[in-house]
Amino acid sequence: MKKTIAILPGDGIGPEIMSQTLRILKKIENKFDHQFQLVEGYIGGSAFEKYNSHFPEITKVICAKSDAILFGSVGGPLEKAEFPKWKDCEKNSILALRKTFHFSSNIRPAKVFAELKEICPLKDSIIGNGIDIVIVRELLGDIYFGEHLTYIENQLRKAKDICEYDEKQISIVAHQAFRMARKRNNKVTSVDKANVLDTSKLWRSIVSEVGRDYPDVTLEHMLVDNCAMQFFIQPTQFDVILTSNLFGDILSDAAAAFPGSLGLMPSASFNEQGFALYEPSGGSAPHLAGKNIANPIAQILSLSLLFKHSFELFEEADIIEKAVQKTLQAGYRTKDICIKENEGISTTQMTDIILSHI
Amino acid sequence: MKKTIAILPGDGIGPEIMSQTLRILKKIENKFDHQFQLVEGYIGGSAFEKYNSHFPEITKVICAKSDAILFGSVGGPLEKAEFPKWKDCEKNSILALRKTFHFSSNIRPAKVFAELKEICPLKDSIIGNGIDIVIVRELLGDIYFGEHLTYIENQLRKAKDICEYDEKQISIVAHQAFRMARKRNNKVTSVDKANVLDTSKLWRSIVSEVGRDYPDVTLEHMLVDNCAMQFFIQPTQFDVILTSNLFGDILSDAAAAFPGSLGLMPSASFNEQGFALYEPSGGSAPHLAGKNIANPIAQILSLSLLFKHSFELFEEADIIEKAVQKTLQAGYRTKDICIKENEGISTTQMTDIILSHI
Ligand SMILES: CC(C)[C@H](C(=O)O)[C@@H](O)C(=O)O
Ligand SMILES: CC(C)[C@H](C(=O)O)[C@@H](O)C(=O)O
Repeated sequence: MKKTIAILPGDGIGPEIMSQTLRILKKIENKFDHQFQLVEGYIGGSAFEKYNSHFPEITKVICAKSDAILFGSVGGPLEKAEFPKWKDCEKNSILALRKTFHFSSNIRPAKVFAELKEICPLKDSIIGNGIDIVIVRELLGDIYFGEHLTYIENQLRKAKDICEYDEKQISIVAHQAFRMARKRNNKVTSVDKANVLDTSKLWRSIVSEVGRDYPDVTLEHMLVDNCAMQFFIQPTQFDVILTSNLFGDILSDAAAAFPGSLGLMPSASFNEQGFALYEPSGGSAPHLAGKNIANPIAQILSLSLLFKHSFELFEEADIIEKAVQKTLQAGYRTKDICIKENEGISTTQMTDIILSHI
Repeated sequence: MKKTIAILPGDGIGPEIMSQTLRILKKIENKFDHQFQLVEGYIGGSAFEKYNSHFPEITKVICAKSDAILFGSVGGPLEKAEFPKWKDCEKNSILALRKTFHFSSNIRPAKVFAELKEICPLKDSIIGNGIDIVIVRELLGDIYFGEHLTYIENQLRKAKDICEYDEKQISIVAHQAFRMARKRNNKVTSVDKANVLDTSKLWRSIVSEVGRDYPDVTLEHMLVDNCAMQFFIQPTQFDVILTSNLFGDILSDAAAAFPGSLGLMPSASFNEQGFALYEPSGGSAPHLAGKNIANPIAQILSLSLLFKHSFELFEEADIIEKAVQKTLQAGYRTKDICIKENEGISTTQMTDIILSHI
């Protein structure tokens, strides 16, 4: 197979975990005799340094010409948030990227690896037979892309953000969630705040309508505040969670804690044509950068998602997943998933072991 | 002391746990020779049945003439959400009540009782020496009370909700949080989504400005998605969490899971003049109603908060808290906090034991 992949390492730990992931990619490429053309692009703070823009035109072109995008992470340290290099970096890069290519649905698994039950923050009695959730998050509507305003009125500083949804936006992502549920355990929990918001009431109606096309899938509605609580008290009740942009942002980060480390979970963002971007669920983690200690697994599993969803290379995807699993089963741990303090192997060592299973 | 208290039992388990709480109130009244005039009012679904309104004028007057409000809970079962009795019930009652009396700050503790560590959903390694957080939530701004709109445009159903803040709203609740931190461990974590929202950017600036008046209090800013995750991985880092209405709604329900049951946590909502409403953090729990099994502790501790904050009756408040603590220490458990299935004492029995310690 011949394919072009846009590689956007970004900032912080992005470049390190990306370069390790590319070792995996090369090995798969050779093993299966594929031809992957990798085209690297700058994004985030590193793009700003070179092009004075967080998302330069050239990067846009690289992405547009690719068959899929593998993304690292963007953003700088909190204490430098006001430096031009980092100011509005996420908004100008990752949000702009989503908007440019109409990535309207974001898919994030959140599960507890059996081997890593001990690092899940929840008690064993809560984990039960295991937590295995996929969050399907709408990515282009809500309060993210509506008008944002800061102004002065009656001598008071004021600000306003507009939250908006239309039925089409909701139905696209709802279909995504129901299709996903069919491949899993046939249950969708749609999360909103319908007791307060009009957008949530619309959300609830449209999701119910779409649900009628999937009579084999159970649909449940849940308020977002209750859902956040259920994550603690009964997370095993969930299969697919379908939610809007802002609630999805909050809930998917919360769920990212289930496996015990942000360094374990990949994510994928799709547009209606199936073009997609793959990225780790965690951020750029500036305090870990440059130390060769970050966990490469989320990035490596993002590659496996890319193989599966963008190229339909199921065997390749499966080999990567199994290699990660074997590595964890054998007890190898980077610092973030190691219960003993001050221990853990390096980013490169972790990748070496995973490679050895491919 | 002579005081008037508005008693609003509401729906679901509200009336049951309220009537038990009033037994505690009477005992304190006698013991300390106070005179509490209790004036009961209808609210929620029960008000709708009698007055065809979720928040009738008469209830407004009762509240206005009182020195403090003790509230139960409102709302009906999910499957009846569209019945007139329950439709928009929460919005028309509790939200209207907040708005009418300008209750702008909501205070909710979230802690793990040492005696109940086993029912906290988090692993002991995460609980460490204990979780003890107070969430200070703004209650009148954000996307709750801005315009809500549902309309059709280009033949598409659309909806819009407006999120708004002004500097005054933010500074009122920020002062509340900093004062609270001074009585505790001198740390405020302000939670927002400043990488996306203009209201959050304004929030961050105003909170930082207010923070300068409290140089002895450490101020930290955190993104809401990260905060939701930190609740799982390091909840012990928090002392006072200060946040906006919607994020506060989500985070305070999540935090309500820490003690192991919603039935344990009280809350208080203040206006600028110090007039306040006290209510359990949990909802009306229709499935538990009428069975005499609901946990009365959240409502009883709400009374203790009322004594402390509205009447400055510190000894009375303290006696109630200690009585609850002794009861838990002695091993008495309602169903919700009992680890053995199908066990647990009744609402009235729990209250009997607490009363015996007063
Ligand atoms: C960086 C930020 C704008 C982004 C979001 O809020 O969507 C991030 O938190 C995410 O979840 O991908
Ligand atoms: C009932 C509902 C409108 C309310 C809210 O969202 O504020 C509730 O969830 C709460 O937290 O008090």
